[in-house]
Amino acid sequence: MFDSWRGFADKTLTAEWHRTLTEKARAARGEIIKMTTIAASGHPGGSMSSLEMYLLLYHFAKVDPKNPYRDERDRIIISHGHTSPGAYTALAAAGFFEIGPALHGFRQAGSPFEGHVERSVPGIEWDTGNLGQGLSVGCGKALYARLAGLTFHTYVLMGDGEQQKGQIAEARRFAVKYKLTNLTALVDFNRLQISGKIDDVMPQHVKVGWEADGWRVIEVDGHDLKCLYAALWDATHTQDGPVMILAHTIMGKGVSFMENDENYHGAALSMDQARKAFAELGGIPDDLEVLAARRKNGPPPPFATRRASYPKIEPGSPANYGVDEKLDNRGAFGKALVSVAEANMGKPGVVMGVFDCDLAKSVKVDGFAKKFAESFFQCGISEHSTATMAGALSAEQAVAVWADFGVFGIDETYNQARLNDINHSNLKLFCTHSGVMVGEDGKTHQCIDYFSLLNSTFGWKVITPADPNQTDRVVRYVLSTPGNYAVVMGRSVAPMVKNENGEPYFAGAYRYRYGRMEWLRSGEQVALVAAGNVVPTAMEAWNALQAEGVRISLVCVSDWSDLHADDLGALARYQDLVVLEDHNVKTGLGTALSAALFEHGCRTRLTRMGVTRYGSSGKPDELYKLLGIDAGSVAARVRSLLIEKSVMR
Amino acid sequence: MFDSWRGFADKTLTAEWHRTLTEKARAARGEIIKMTTIAASGHPGGSMSSLEMYLLLYHFAKVDPKNPYRDERDRIIISHGHTSPGAYTALAAAGFFEIGPALHGFRQAGSPFEGHVERSVPGIEWDTGNLGQGLSVGCGKALYARLAGLTFHTYVLMGDGEQQKGQIAEARRFAVKYKLTNLTALVDFNRLQISGKIDDVMPQHVKVGWEADGWRVIEVDGHDLKCLYAALWDATHTQDGPVMILAHTIMGKGVSFMENDENYHGAALSMDQARKAFAELGGIPDDLEVLAARRKNGPPPPFATRRASYPKIEPGSPANYGVDEKLDNRGAFGKALVSVAEANMGKPGVVMGVFDCDLAKSVKVDGFAKKFAESFFQCGISEHSTATMAGALSAEQAVAVWADFGVFGIDETYNQARLNDINHSNLKLFCTHSGVMVGEDGKTHQCIDYFSLLNSTFGWKVITPADPNQTDRVVRYVLSTPGNYAVVMGRSVAPMVKNENGEPYFAGAYRYRYGRMEWLRSGEQVALVAAGNVVPTAMEAWNALQAEGVRISLVCVSDWSDLHADDLGALARYQDLVVLEDHNVKTGLGTALSAALFEHGCRTRLTRMGVTRYGSSGKPDELYKLLGIDAGSVAARVRSLLIEKSVMR
Repeated sequence: MFDSWRGFADKTLTAEWHRTLTEKARAARGEIIKMTTIAASGHPGGSMSSLEMYLLLYHFAKVDPKNPYRDERDRIIISHGHTSPGAYTALAAAGFFEIGPALHGFRQAGSPFEGHVERSVPGIEWDTGNLGQGLSVGCGKALYARLAGLTFHTYVLMGDGEQQKGQIAEARRFAVKYKLTNLTALVDFNRLQISGKIDDVMPQHVKVGWEADGWRVIEVDGHDLKCLYAALWDATHTQDGPVMILAHTIMGKGVSFMENDENYHGAALSMDQARKAFAELGGIPDDLEVLAARRKNGPPPPFATRRASYPKIEPGSPANYGVDEKLDNRGAFGKALVSVAEANMGKPGVVMGVFDCDLAKSVKVDGFAKKFAESFFQCGISEHSTATMAGALSAEQAVAVWADFGVFGIDETYNQARLNDINHSNLKLFCTHSGVMVGEDGKTHQCIDYFSLLNSTFGWKVITPADPNQTDRVVRYVLSTPGNYAVVMGRSVAPMVKNENGEPYFAGAYRYRYGRMEWLRSGEQVALVAAGNVVPTAMEAWNALQAEGVRISLVCVSDWSDLHADDLGALARYQDLVVLEDHNVKTGLGTALSAALFEHGCRTRLTRMGVTRYGSSGKPDELYKLLGIDAGSVAARVRSLLIEKSVMR
Repeated sequence: MFDSWRGFADKTLTAEWHRTLTEKARAARGEIIKMTTIAASGHPGGSMSSLEMYLLLYHFAKVDPKNPYRDERDRIIISHGHTSPGAYTALAAAGFFEIGPALHGFRQAGSPFEGHVERSVPGIEWDTGNLGQGLSVGCGKALYARLAGLTFHTYVLMGDGEQQKGQIAEARRFAVKYKLTNLTALVDFNRLQISGKIDDVMPQHVKVGWEADGWRVIEVDGHDLKCLYAALWDATHTQDGPVMILAHTIMGKGVSFMENDENYHGAALSMDQARKAFAELGGIPDDLEVLAARRKNGPPPPFATRRASYPKIEPGSPANYGVDEKLDNRGAFGKALVSVAEANMGKPGVVMGVFDCDLAKSVKVDGFAKKFAESFFQCGISEHSTATMAGALSAEQAVAVWADFGVFGIDETYNQARLNDINHSNLKLFCTHSGVMVGEDGKTHQCIDYFSLLNSTFGWKVITPADPNQTDRVVRYVLSTPGNYAVVMGRSVAPMVKNENGEPYFAGAYRYRYGRMEWLRSGEQVALVAAGNVVPTAMEAWNALQAEGVRISLVCVSDWSDLHADDLGALARYQDLVVLEDHNVKTGLGTALSAALFEHGCRTRLTRMGVTRYGSSGKPDELYKLLGIDAGSVAARVRSLLIEKSVMR
């Protein structure tokens, strides 16, 4: 009887469908209770209030249970991820999988049926649970449809408690600005959250708030399948801006003693309570003991899931900047971005989106914006939503680029970066104003924790190019490689790094090899290791020492996240390492190198020179001096180490 | 003529004041231009549009230029911190300091006159610049007035571009819920932001949005001193909810070629342009050359600034939990919090506020909420605003406590924590659901980066108590000690740590010494170092090994941020260290210990056992097993190290 890929084609729900879904809803409520009771954990209340929405969406959106990863499918995003039992039962009811394993394997270690919705389950598009992000995900998916020329619709299911999160307003306004009529939000308006009534916890005019941001709101009884269907049909077919369906529902709907009781937001029924609920729902078989026994046999097997493949991107031809060119790394980024876009845009399968938060000229995406206006998204000052939205786009077959200052692209939005990473995004983050080098904007704007934050995830890789030539190559590498990369740059003009013949080091025959250090200069006893913004400083120190007849090694690290064993071995052969970085010295490259060398059993001395306190406002050179990380201080430190001639302790 | 502490007492602005302030505004516009031109950097445009607001507030609010830190002063919070030239000139005009040093020392390294407003300048209450946070700061200050029984008013100046930030809506709703009539917001509505017109960058109905959240909005010409004064009088004296003054202004106001040009948002005039501006403003002395020469003499001296002192808090009597008591650390936190509150509330000078984001029962602040309802603030699901608000309260003479899950209290709000730290807050953050131990809620909810994030600041200290007894003592220590502390706990029942006599280790004669490790068991060759959630796991491993006749040492680390040299020295005497932690293994305790030992020249072998990938959903024990950090895996690792009997490589 199932006939998928409907796309809410009929204007009304037939009587037959109404009977079918009514019956499915009754059974699903029983399953929600089983799942959570067997797990003794989970969120039955909201699952039961969202259930009719789940059932209608998974039955009438354009989804294919037998082939759940078709690129042209509608995207159903679940923002209130704790209602996973509702989603799982509805997916099963629609034919995505058999419900059995979910009933005993919910929230069990190793099971695909995790506590909050996770992409390990077919039909689930995005791992959520941290509230307030789903609408931003939906915007990213809706943009993908537009950019890829696909006609799919995106539905975002949300809780009402989460309406308290500010990020939602950012996403709302973006959706209206870009006229995302292919996006529909559904709010499960059961008026309860963990701590009680939403009106007590945090009074809010939900409908008025959405309307204030330009959305059309349809109010509907969220348990009335016919009315809800009609609202979804309307929202799916309208060209009248994005629509929010405010679904008035009842937490714990269907079981009298659960209804409107916030205690069932996040607590399971006991076995006895569950049996009472089964009786009330009618016709729910009591197989709790069987399920409990099955659970003891271990978690159900994983599903074969398929991720969107990263588009094939030509890196294009690298630029070669002469030693006298005056350019900052961010400028080189902007040019390389346009160059890569020009080499790829228009090719089949290439979708690209560049996101900006009111800083296009500073972060140098204005060139891209001019040439590829349709692929450029000005998000205003709304970093949280932008981070999530760009991440969601990047998890499709698309290149998503977000450029921002370091404190906004990393510090302000760390959790969004973490959740993107969990969702296997391929976001390309370019942070152009990082380190104390940001200068006059002062301590609030100096991002000195880019590595320690992103290294706290398992996927993000941090690259700090040394000059415009290396930046150019790094940008091409990153754009043509899957995965989450943060390219962290400073603000100032970056002198070209030269080899000893005075030629550009990172141009011509140089090939960027991710993960390897560059020995810019070879010398004795001391290796001065520098990264990113302070490579010119280190070079200046090296030159000063060289002029005195002191010849040390100078090593450039661009890729902090993967330190190569061969490079570590080579470093360990020096009596002294001096690590110079424009990063919090507690948590940066020096610490990572120390830990790596220690665990390799190496035994050399390492001096960390970095940012030891919040900076102030001033020119980078002056600030470096105040912090003791200017060229003079570095050279002095090397001299004193050589004088000490210390042997190993 | 100046007569401070007015509090907008008169209903209208007198003609004399109007003349005075008009003249001051003219001079101040010249000064704004001088400041930015001499620095060749800064934001003149918005400074000139906000100027009348600044002048009226610093002249008519209850502030005392001669004694700017009186506890009963009105708080003037500047959310759009880039308009610092406007603030500095107005402060000088009101007598807080002489303008001279600001004119040549603006944005100069070492100068108090930083690029974004900083508390190094008398009259500036909060370092801002990252947009969207000021209203949350204002809420914190308004709460302080209420809790401390002070009648001061809080004014928050904001930009219009920053209205795009979602955090503002969170703060708006909080202010309405708690009827903060002692709070007024002013929006500089010049309709331009860096990238152009706000209506182009991100269309938004600013007024409607505020009204939707329950604020009364007064629209006014922001350059008309009389009208603006009347609006401020109204907002200050009304009991009709918090008021937002929407001040229609002109970017670059007063200089024809700057007006309504977004290029002057963030760019200074050249010397020649400045001179043209002086001519237009009339009567502005051209001392640019003199100022430029003065700048070369170095930055102006710092001001003597005074921070609010932390209240004197009695830690109360520690609880002693018996070895058989079933309690989780979060439960011990909740009890200790109530105990400390009971020992201090009502004493003179003691102000306390506890903040919750819809998780009171889970994070165990429900006991406090019941006993001290007036000091408990239910913020709903609005972590960003709550983090800032609690931080702002904690920077007054008040104890501010925020309890939340780790991913919300740390990951979601890292930047708020960083900015609080920059502002010398004394926030007490209690994260009750941290580590993989969070269990069934799954990877999105497992905070495994608490240390690496907060250690990226210079002030925050991270403590992971081992059991309820230690938790009790840590809570008392933290609440009675100034500074930013994060007490990071798990979710599960934590067995009491016992000494070898079977008595509670962390009770009785035990005294908590911040920064020191505890040698729970002494043994040979291997020291097993464990922290927080996994101390019971380590103890179980130790017991298993002991039963086999293998006696190693077991060391408990609670205080990750300050590793004591004596403890490091003691650890270095072992052949092997095994570090066990419920934290990302790349960036946690093992890495910190490795780096510290390496830099102390120590040479022992260290094995890191921690979280190596995003966890899944399940019982903590099962997840630990999946990750190879359960007791069995730890004991096995120790055995294999002992078999290897490896000598130093």
